[in-house]
Formats: sequence, structure tokens, C-alpha cells
Amino acid sequence: MFVIMEEGAAEAQIEAVIGRLITAGFNVHRSTGAVHTVLGCVGPKEELDPGVIELMAGVRECRRVITPYKLAGRNFNPGGTTFSVRGVEIGGSHVVSIGGPCSVESEAQIELAASQVAQAGAKGLRGGAFKPRSSPYSFQGLGEDGLRLLRAAADRHGLFAVSEVMDQTQIPMMERYVDVFQVGARNMQNFNLLKELGKSRLPVLLKRGIAATVEELLLSAEYLLSGGNYNVILCERGIRTFETYTRNTMDISAIPVIKKLSHLPIMADPSHGTGRRDNVIPMARAAVAAGADGLLVEMHPDPDNAVSDGAQSLLPGQFTDMMRQVRLIAAAVGRTA
Amino acid sequence: MFVIMEEGAAEAQIEAVIGRLITAGFNVHRSTGAVHTVLGCVGPKEELDPGVIELMAGVRECRRVITPYKLAGRNFNPGGTTFSVRGVEIGGSHVVSIGGPCSVESEAQIELAASQVAQAGAKGLRGGAFKPRSSPYSFQGLGEDGLRLLRAAADRHGLFAVSEVMDQTQIPMMERYVDVFQVGARNMQNFNLLKELGKSRLPVLLKRGIAATVEELLLSAEYLLSGGNYNVILCERGIRTFETYTRNTMDISAIPVIKKLSHLPIMADPSHGTGRRDNVIPMARAAVAAGADGLLVEMHPDPDNAVSDGAQSLLPGQFTDMMRQVRLIAAAVGRTA
Amino acid sequence: MFVIMEEGAAEAQIEAVIGRLITAGFNVHRSTGAVHTVLGCVGPKEELDPGVIELMAGVRECRRVITPYKLAGRNFNPGGTTFSVRGVEIGGSHVVSIGGPCSVESEAQIELAASQVAQAGAKGLRGGAFKPRSSPYSFQGLGEDGLRLLRAAADRHGLFAVSEVMDQTQIPMMERYVDVFQVGARNMQNFNLLKELGKSRLPVLLKRGIAATVEELLLSAEYLLSGGNYNVILCERGIRTFETYTRNTMDISAIPVIKKLSHLPIMADPSHGTGRRDNVIPMARAAVAAGADGLLVEMHPDPDNAVSDGAQSLLPGQFTDMMRQVRLIAAAVGRTA
Amino acid sequence: MFVIMEEGAAEAQIEAVIGRLITAGFNVHRSTGAVHTVLGCVGPKEELDPGVIELMAGVRECRRVITPYKLAGRNFNPGGTTFSVRGVEIGGSHVVSIGGPCSVESEAQIELAASQVAQAGAKGLRGGAFKPRSSPYSFQGLGEDGLRLLRAAADRHGLFAVSEVMDQTQIPMMERYVDVFQVGARNMQNFNLLKELGKSRLPVLLKRGIAATVEELLLSAEYLLSGGNYNVILCERGIRTFETYTRNTMDISAIPVIKKLSHLPIMADPSHGTGRRDNVIPMARAAVAAGADGLLVEMHPDPDNAVSDGAQSLLPGQFTDMMRQVRLIAAAVGRTA
Repeated sequence: MFVIMEEGAAEAQIEAVIGRLITAGFNVHRSTGAVHTVLGCVGPKEELDPGVIELMAGVRECRRVITPYKLAGRNFNPGGTTFSVRGVEIGGSHVVSIGGPCSVESEAQIELAASQVAQAGAKGLRGGAFKPRSSPYSFQGLGEDGLRLLRAAADRHGLFAVSEVMDQTQIPMMERYVDVFQVGARNMQNFNLLKELGKSRLPVLLKRGIAATVEELLLSAEYLLSGGNYNVILCERGIRTFETYTRNTMDISAIPVIKKLSHLPIMADPSHGTGRRDNVIPMARAAVAAGADGLLVEMHPDPDNAVSDGAQSLLPGQFTDMMRQVRLIAAAVGRTA
Repeated sequence: MFVIMEEGAAEAQIEAVIGRLITAGFNVHRSTGAVHTVLGCVGPKEELDPGVIELMAGVRECRRVITPYKLAGRNFNPGGTTFSVRGVEIGGSHVVSIGGPCSVESEAQIELAASQVAQAGAKGLRGGAFKPRSSPYSFQGLGEDGLRLLRAAADRHGLFAVSEVMDQTQIPMMERYVDVFQVGARNMQNFNLLKELGKSRLPVLLKRGIAATVEELLLSAEYLLSGGNYNVILCERGIRTFETYTRNTMDISAIPVIKKLSHLPIMADPSHGTGRRDNVIPMARAAVAAGADGLLVEMHPDPDNAVSDGAQSLLPGQFTDMMRQVRLIAAAVGRTA
Repeated sequence: MFVIMEEGAAEAQIEAVIGRLITAGFNVHRSTGAVHTVLGCVGPKEELDPGVIELMAGVRECRRVITPYKLAGRNFNPGGTTFSVRGVEIGGSHVVSIGGPCSVESEAQIELAASQVAQAGAKGLRGGAFKPRSSPYSFQGLGEDGLRLLRAAADRHGLFAVSEVMDQTQIPMMERYVDVFQVGARNMQNFNLLKELGKSRLPVLLKRGIAATVEELLLSAEYLLSGGNYNVILCERGIRTFETYTRNTMDISAIPVIKKLSHLPIMADPSHGTGRRDNVIPMARAAVAAGADGLLVEMHPDPDNAVSDGAQSLLPGQFTDMMRQVRLIAAAVGRTA
Repeated sequence: MFVIMEEGAAEAQIEAVIGRLITAGFNVHRSTGAVHTVLGCVGPKEELDPGVIELMAGVRECRRVITPYKLAGRNFNPGGTTFSVRGVEIGGSHVVSIGGPCSVESEAQIELAASQVAQAGAKGLRGGAFKPRSSPYSFQGLGEDGLRLLRAAADRHGLFAVSEVMDQTQIPMMERYVDVFQVGARNMQNFNLLKELGKSRLPVLLKRGIAATVEELLLSAEYLLSGGNYNVILCERGIRTFETYTRNTMDISAIPVIKKLSHLPIMADPSHGTGRRDNVIPMARAAVAAGADGLLVEMHPDPDNAVSDGAQSLLPGQFTDMMRQVRLIAAAVGRTA
């Protein structure tokens, strides 16, 4: 922890702060300059709330020093984490693509989607069974039936299956159907859910919340890791800004930033990131060019009649075209896709 | 639904859009001007995704018309909703204040807090038992023991009790202790939780998410109302912006906006709204001046040693002073506090 | 300046940073704890870019300590700055209101506006002569003729006159007509303009940019003060956020924050802050409740036919009502209005 | 223009709105459905402020239809605009890179920079002579001497020269030294400057403001085009969001969006876009992968001792490496670089 005193802070104010810090168990080093005094404070646990010090008279700023996440930090595994999902390596030199509809709607729909996804060269099949919709009057998903259809379609085409878990009560049931749990942006800080997923044997794809900083995303990953689940995939899917032309603003720079700060694989979701089908392919290229380890893309056999997210779902032919373009970009950065 | 065609859209494009809309069950009225064609479309349910139309050739914009919330809208109860919590009217001419610590820490702490809150003239006691913290290594709350202490302290001082519910599995247990469920900002779109709370007999204080629009807040309230729970209190507690001096930017204008759009009572939380004790009182005054029906304020008998949120908690004397100042502002807008 | 090394930074990395800092003229104090090393650095001028240090191996963070503004800071004049404009004290116990149309449109319009503003008890008359419009095809203002009309109307009704200056070439001409220069949000960081206004004898009302932090607003004020013009009024007028229901999100908390950080008077503009007439009065009340020293409000004798900003302009009767309500709030915080 | 009435709007309210619109010269088409009435309104000029209609009783929403920009829109030149700067085609199949220091500091520095930029294969040399700094106490640039040095260095190495213009008084002088005027993010809505640049014979590189929407950027371009200057290059350089790890959030999706909405070339500035040297290369790759027509990158022969922006400036070797990587990405999207 360090404390910056205001210009002209009185000696008594400085000593009061030092006294408070020593009481809390810190060793304090004082640096006094022409205009400012800075206190460097070192303690074993740093439990003290810096805001409390900041409100003391004469204090300009107080900040904690210890990185709040440890297991999610790059130092924990400097070479980068890789793991396998049904034989597909995540986090390695191959850029792994996952495609499929927003919602599982019927056996025919998910079977067709799986066949198209597999033919295009993607490795995973996505499909929602429980749909968290902003409005209570919208389609809410097929539930466990949807998961059963997803599993069967994935198996027929040699794909791994990804679906979103909405709360911790669904975990044991879903473990029978999926290979990867997806945690949606709205649940990124549902800590009770994260704690239970930390105990699961299945990998978790954790999406960044629309108002979450990179640090908060890594702290949420820390919940999973500290529970014992080390197979975590992070996913950038757009943040909320003032720009309204796109549904969200995809923060492509989060990809190299996370690569630097963390050892975990990072994927990108250009469908939610932009909300418009016509931007998905350029943003998929950009994500891979920036270093993404994978893509999560909505594709629907008949998006005009999709029950949800049709406008951001690629047509099957577009998905195939995206895979072709992404392969060229991956080669330009020394990877495959 | 209405559709705006691009300048110079071809007749064939316009007809393709009209055809698509008629297939979907709409009646279409066409307005053609010097440069633009506008299609006004009226259908019984408007299930069609406007994004799908927007991607058709020649279309510039397509938007839904029906207000997505109904029960939460002002029209549903134009006079405004009021209800009673342990004899205290919410939404009426009295501005209702709720005070107390972020977390229940001990019997002595919550007893002292309750006594100070009651003496200052507030009506409700708040205190968290399950703390959703960004870091898995921080204090996580006393759990059911905390609720028991909260209930007892509230009863001794004639206050109603408010505490945050983290997920739907806690509802039956918590109903034994609290008078109002608080739903935190991070859970504003935890729809499984909202659905279950819609079935509860207890009022719900629903906080706005840090990246939620007013419309999204009202849609989340709609989940509660459509489940049968009409005793909902909305709460503005700050949104996330680029400004970093304050923890959040409190959107005071949301108060008159919500008063116009909805019949539900709206409270303000200047503690989370600003994150700094020295801004809480001015922002409490501003919220009441703008029309807030109540205040939710963190107060701790000894904030410097609080286990959480100490920097934004008022000292007991400050809480009393806030109540005095708020009473003057309430009088200036024709209310009591 | 202080430097926080990463956990596990090598001794050679720490020494390289210390060497770099000493070369740049700093005295360095080193604090080594169980996990982190912190360097407190004190130098006479702190010209070194902290970003350069931050990119050195093993460095986690480097930050400057010296407050970037000096003359605008509260310490420079702890009692708070007041000055007089045509006999009206700014920054004192009276909350000063300024009303008038967005644009001066005609002699009849500005004369009627001035009469209504004066009768309602406001002290200043605003009216734009050069309109910076987002579109080149919109009305661009009456120019010097507009200023002449504004001056005459203000004089007839004993009001001081405020109008926006668009660039430094207009200063000498405008000094003949106005009592206060207004600098618009888009020009808050037009430093060439600020430098020239620093040499003027007239007060400047400096609006916060829609994406400017409070610190950046104070730095822009510093340009004026360091040029010798100490009569500066700051003005909060809304920042740009994701919320689209209101045109901007008015940051009411900036008012107490600026009161703490600076000695300069701070006004509020609820017209641009909300963009909708029906929110102006509640937000005017909120601003005064939070401590604003004045209000800048758009009022038009016939807003439905205004050439610009009609939707956010109050009707004359509403302006009078606002003044009445604001007077009650001012009394509740121990002031007049 | 179209108007959506509220559910349950009275017939008299609807007729009042229709009357108001007809008075303003519109033809009105009325669509009445089960719950809503929609008015489609077509008029020759649409000068009426939609906000004025929106405040009428019973109106839920009123919006303008006509695209606010015309000359900047894709329709104006569907094939895309290309032009030549000293023989280098902008907007064609070659991705054009511009490198150089934030500020021209000395003859030796800019000469060395120009030589490194040219050797790496870039086509343009950038260097600031007038530095708009947030603080009045920072280095403010070499002025005309800096431009003279920039010109000479560019000429010696066959590069075109780009430098930022701060206000309209500098235009005639700067035209003697530069090949492209750069308009900085803070000046994107300095309309007096844009109007004068519209009369210049030199191309303008117009940077997006940190809080500007894509539509506002195109409206600012419209000022240049409507003044007669058709040689405009747009530039994405990051927007301000809540994320603080990077200096700005680079909105890569603006690149395909602008390609769709406008015919103008679009470049990307990953230096200001990220603010950190270690993110510049990945973001340069991402921008080109997303379709950017060029790059504007800060490179300094000795960034640790740069007077400004050292932390985001590439080292010469890094610049060469970036050019090599960007060439591979350009090839993957069918271009050269």
C-alpha cells in the first residue's frame, strides 16, 4: 500500500496516518520531497481498506499494491495454460472455433447446424437451452430437452458441446450433456455460481461482463481457479459504450492485454461483440490477428426465422467463408485455424 | 414496427420488405416522400426480430414500437404505487430512509447501528449477510447468523429489515428474517432469481445494474411484477462511466425519468453511488430534491474498522446530520422525511 | 512519483529502475515487503513520463504524484473564489441563475426572453450568436448582429450578458458586447482559445466536455488562470454515457467533488444536462441541493418554434416556476436564489 | 420523420400531433394497430425539431429520417474514394503507413526518424509542431521551426508529411510545409477550423473524438466535403470507456462500420488507441485485418527520452517488425502494405 499526502499536509497529519498504518501492522517508509510526502507501506496481508486512509486529513490518495488475483495471473503459469476438450487442444497454436445457434430450437435445426459447423472446420457446437432474456415475455429455451438434442448432434459430428449455465442448481444436470460450461456476461459476477463451477470437472468459458474491466474478469476467473477448476477460457464479447451503431463495442485490445496479464486462453465472440451479421467476419479476422485463441460465433441454418439473435447469426455459407478467411489470418500470425 | 428505407432504395427492395412483413402477419402502411420511404407496420404480437429486417437490402433502420414492459409502465397505475412495509408507507409523501452497515459483523455492531439509525429517524435497517465480493479472498459474510442478528436488532428498534439475496435457493430461508429482499446491481439481470422473487410475498428493492439502462431496469422489474409480486422498489445506485474520481456516477436524472415512465417507487443509494463518505450527504440531498421516494445509506458505528465498504459508510453523527438536512430538502419539495 | 514492482521482480530489474530514476534526477526510497517492492521517488520537477518507467521489465505500475493543476486547486484559495459581474456576486451565498434562448433569433425574441428572465428573478441573459452545430446544414447563428441584440436586451432589463466564443479570433469583437465568455463543451480542450481568454479582462464560464474527467476540467481552467484570468466559472452540463433516454447523463456528484478540489465557483446546466424540458426543473433542484453556485438554463418565449434546442428549452412560465422551486431548495441549504 | 404515439393515446392527442405536423408542411400517413398508432411523415426539408413533437401529450417517440450527412455517405461514391498524396494512393489496395514521433524535437531526431520510417517501408512522416497538452506547463512544440524540419526530413527520404493543425489561423502558414493536415480528436468538432479546411487544397486526416459516435465523425467530415475539400481520410484512434488499463478503447469495429456507411478511406492509430507500446503491434494487425486503409503510428528514435508520448511510441526496430507483420496480414486480406 502507498499513501500520497497532499501538498502542504501538516506534520501532525502525516504522523496520524503513519500511526494508523503501524497499528494496522504495516511497515512504513517515508519519502519527503520538495512538495509531497509519499508513504510506502508493506504488510503481510493488506486487509486495510485504502478508502479509509484516503479519507484521513491531508491524504490525497491511498492505493493497494498487491495484485488482487494470483492464480489467474501470468506469473502462475508463464508459459500459458493449455488443456484438451474431447481431444481438441485449447490455448495452443490452433485457433479453435465454436459455432452454432443462439438457442436450440428443434432436432432438425441443431442437427443441420452441427453438420454445417463441422463441415466448415470448427471444433465445437454451441446452443442455448436456458435463455436469459431481458423481457419475461420472450422465448425462454427448451431446457433439458434442448441439451439432449445438442449433445446428440455434437456426437454425430465429432464436435464438443458448449451451453450456458444460468445458476448453480443446473450444474449437476448439465454435466451429463455438455463438455464446456458457458458463463454469460450477465453472470460474470454471480459468485455463488462461480464457486460451484470451481468444483466441477468440466472447463468453463467465462464471458466478460458488458461493464467489467479486465481486472474484474480476471478476479472472476480467480473464483473458478481457487475452487480447483483450472480449465478456464476467458471470452471478450463487447463492452457497453456510448456508441449505438453496434450493439456493443468489441474491445479487441483486451486480447493482447489479457495475454500479458494472464496465462489463461482467451477467445472472442464477434456475434455479441457487434450484434450485426455484417460485422462478424471482419471482427473475427481482427480478433485472430490480435492473438485470440478461439472464436465463438453464432450461426443459424435459417437466421431470418431464428427465435433469438437472428440478426447477428451468420448464414451457413458465411460461416464457411469466415473459417476460410480466419485460416489465412491465423497463418499470417504463425498459427492454424 | 416501422421500417425506414435508404435514400434511393429500389422499388423491388421496398416490395421485398413489404412482402416479408406481410408474411409475418403485419399490416403495412407505406409513406413515400421526396427522398425516403417509411413503412408503418402493425401486427398483433410483433414477435419478428427487427434486426432481421434491418439486414435486408435497401433498409436503413427497423424498430419495434410496443413498449417492452407493461406492468412496470406508468400507464398500469397512473397514480403511482404505494405499499406498506411493517406499517411504513413506501411511495407516499414521506421520504423513507434505510440505514445500516454494509455487512452484519457482530451482535454489538448491528445493535449499535440499529439504535443510531432509529434515533436519527430512519425507518429501515440494512445489513448484508452474504457478501458478493469481487475477490474470492475477501470476507464473505456471516450467513444465516447475520440475518438472525439483523432481525433481532431491527425488532428491538422498530425498524423494518432489508438484506441482499444472492440466489434463488436462499429465498425460503431469508423470508423468515427480512421484510424486504434487496437485489444487488450485479443480479439485476439474474432472471432465475427474479422469477422466484416474483412468487414471494415480500417486497423487493431492485438495484439498477452499473451498465443497465432505465429501460432494462424496468424490464427486470417486469419479471417481478409478471410473477405476481407488485411490491417493487427501484433503486438508483450509480452507473459506470469514464470518470474515476467517484466510484460510480450517480444518475440523478434517472429519478425523474423513472417517475415519468413507471408507477413504482424509486429510492437512491448515495453510498454506492459515490463510493466516498464525503459525497454522500450532498448526493442524498440532490436525490430527494429530484424526487426520490427514499434513501438507502451505509452507516457504520465504526467505519474505519468496517470489514467492507468503510470508506463510503457515514459515521453515526453524519447519518443524523444527513437526516436533518434531508428533512429540510423534503419540506422544500412538499414532503416529509 | 512512485513505482510498484511486480511480484517476483528480479533484483537486477529493481536496480535498473532505480538507476533510471536517479539518472533523471530523482531521490529514490525503496520499500521491500514480503511480496512487493515499492519505490517512492522525489524530484524537483517530475518531467519524466511515468509510462516510460512502466514499460521497463519487472515494473507493474508507475504514477506521478504532483497534482497537475495548482492555481485551480482548492489550496490556492481555500476560502473559495468570488467575483462580481455587473454587480452580481458569483460564488457567494446567492445562487445565480442565467436564462435565455439557445440562439438569438430576432430583436423581438431576445427582448421578450430578457424581460421574462428578469421578471423571474434571474441575473444573467444567455443567447448564442455563433452556433456550433453537428451538421453543416443547420442554422449557424446571427453573428455580431445577434450579440448587439443580446447586449441591448440585457441592458434594458439589468441583466449581465453571456454568449459562447467559438475561437480566439472572435475575442476582441465579443468583448464589446458580452460580460461573460462562455466556452462550450466541445471547446473545453481548445487550448489556443483558452490561452487567449487567459489574457482577457472578462470572466469565463467553462463548460465540462462530454467526455472530460473532473481533473481535465480543472486542467483546462488552469490554462485560463495561468494566463492571468482568475474569474473563471466552471459548469457541469452532462457527460456521455451508455444511457440514451436522456441526451447526456448529468454528473451531479461533480458539484461536491469540484467544491472539494477547487476554489472556483461551479454552475450547472440542466438543459444540456438532460436534453428534455420535463427533466430540467428536477435537475435544477438537485444541482442546487448538491451545492451549485448557479444555474444556466435555456428558456425560449416560443420553444416549439425555436431554431435550435427547442425540446430542452423551458417555457417562460416554467422558468418562473423553476426559480420559485429553486428558491425553496436554496433556503434549505442556507442560501438564497 | 415518424411519430409513435403512446399506448392508449387519446384521439384528440393524435389529431393535435397530426395538426402540428401538417402546419409544419408534412404529409402524414397514419397507421393504427391494436395498441399503437404510428404516424409516417414526409416533408421536403424536415427542419422541425423532433424533440418538440416528442414533448406533446400522448407521444412516445419522434425521430427524423433523413440521413444527416450526404456527401460523406457511401451512396455519394459507392466505389469508394481514392486520391493521391505525393504519388501515394490513399484508399486503394495498398495499406499506407505513416510513422514518426509525437513531436518534432530537433533536426537530428526527425532526420533519424524519417530515415527509419522510410527504410521500414512506410510512406508518410508524422511529427507535431504545436502540441495541445492537457496541462499548460508541458512542452508546447517547436512551432514553425518544427514544420520546417519535418518538411526537410520528409523530402530527403521521399515521404509525405503530416502534421496537426490547431486552429484556422495556422492554415496558410502550414500549407507551405505539410502534405496532409491532421485534425486531432479534440478538434473533431471545431467547426470553424473544419470550415476553413474545407477550402484548402490539401487532404485532411480527421481523427475521431474520444466521445464521438461514428455518425458524428461523418458529420464532421461533411463540413470538410461541403466546403469543397473531398480528400478526407478518417481515423479511428480509440474512444473513452470505463476500462482504464488501456489509455483508450480502440473501436476496431468502427472500421467495417465506416466502410459500410461512407466512401472515405479509414486509417487506424493504434498508438493513441492503446497508449502502450506493447499493444501497438497487435492492434495494428487487428486494424488491417478488419479492413483499415492505413496506419498512423508513433515511432521515436529514442522513446525513453521523448518529450511527449514516449510510452506509446515504438522503438525503430519495433516499427520495422510491425511493418513486416502488417504485410503478412495485408496479404491475408488480399492487399499489400
